Amino acid sequence: MEYKVIFHIDENAKWPMVLGNIENLLNAAGTDHIIAEVLANGEAVLKYKDTAEDSGGSAAAMISLHEKGVTFAACQNAMRANGLTKDELLGFVTPVPAGVMELVKRQAQGYGYIKP
Amino acid sequence: MEYKVIFHIDENAKWPMVLGNIENLLNAAGTDHIIAEVLANGEAVLKYKDTAEDSGGSAAAMISLHEKGVTFAACQNAMRANGLTKDELLGFVTPVPAGVMELVKRQAQGYGYIKP
Amino acid sequence: MEYKVIFHIDENAKWPMVLGNIENLLNAAGTDHIIAEVLANGEAVLKYKDTAEDSGGSAAAMISLHEKGVTFAACQNAMRANGLTKDELLGFVTPVPAGVMELVKRQAQGYGYIKP
Repeated sequence: MEYKVIFHIDENAKWPMVLGNIENLLNAAGTDHIIAEVLANGEAVLKYKDTAEDSGGSAAAMISLHEKGVTFAACQNAMRANGLTKDELLGFVTPVPAGVMELVKRQAQGYGYIKP
Repeated sequence: MEYKVIFHIDENAKWPMVLGNIENLLNAAGTDHIIAEVLANGEAVLKYKDTAEDSGGSAAAMISLHEKGVTFAACQNAMRANGLTKDELLGFVTPVPAGVMELVKRQAQGYGYIKP
Repeated sequence: MEYKVIFHIDENAKWPMVLGNIENLLNAAGTDHIIAEVLANGEAVLKYKDTAEDSGGSAAAMISLHEKGVTFAACQNAMRANGLTKDELLGFVTPVPAGVMELVKRQAQGYGYIKP
């Protein structure tokens, strides 16, 4: 069986929960295949900034998940509102024009939605 | 392509995020058609009160979105719990018997769900 | 018509809202049939502990809902993280290996998702 899911995060304080949830999901999947994407908007895009002092350990967890196939998207409206440029993003993060449009499209494609 | 989505809000503090998210969604849609509904329950129904001093600017944003086709629904259980009558609602807000039933029915109709 | 929905809770403070929402949902359903499940992960699993002093009234509300057919699931990763064993759970609570996997599978089965 294959499952698709998009995780939504818009508060920085939720990053440890989100990243832990996805780690648990991948561990639980067993022979099931999981396509998992993280969509950050609001202030939560700031943890995508490519500097150790800003990431507080979350960058390492993201890199580990990305190596297991998890994708990470950043809302460009939120990037503008938080003064974050594309060049400042961790290399594996994909900017999308509007985070909520991504959430709507993915659900229309059959993705489940989880907001930790 | 046409997309349908219901936004769920149950905390007053989230109104600016919800309304900003929907504005961004409509701006991003381009030639895609978006059917967007907001369902408020819990204390969040209080921002539907039709008085400038209570709305803190959110009423103007709601009116602007409503003119672009966004619909707004209020949970009647939450209205009762918060002492809010139908007559006090902004004119374009539709009361529904139970907010969670609306969320369940809309998703069964193919709406995506977003909880900012 | 039959509707299926999974409620997600990961914060203890949200239990009164979640349980009230489900009560309202069942009251509103009328002739519609509702299949409702609660999935708790994070610290929220602690309210599944079978002792009156810890439950703060939520156990009674859960029992009442369970008697009306609502099911309750506990994430085992969260149980481990919060030092909670199977023996300590309220008798009608079902442990699941990973809460997020349950959320993903249920949505793939056509369940709506609500995060109060």
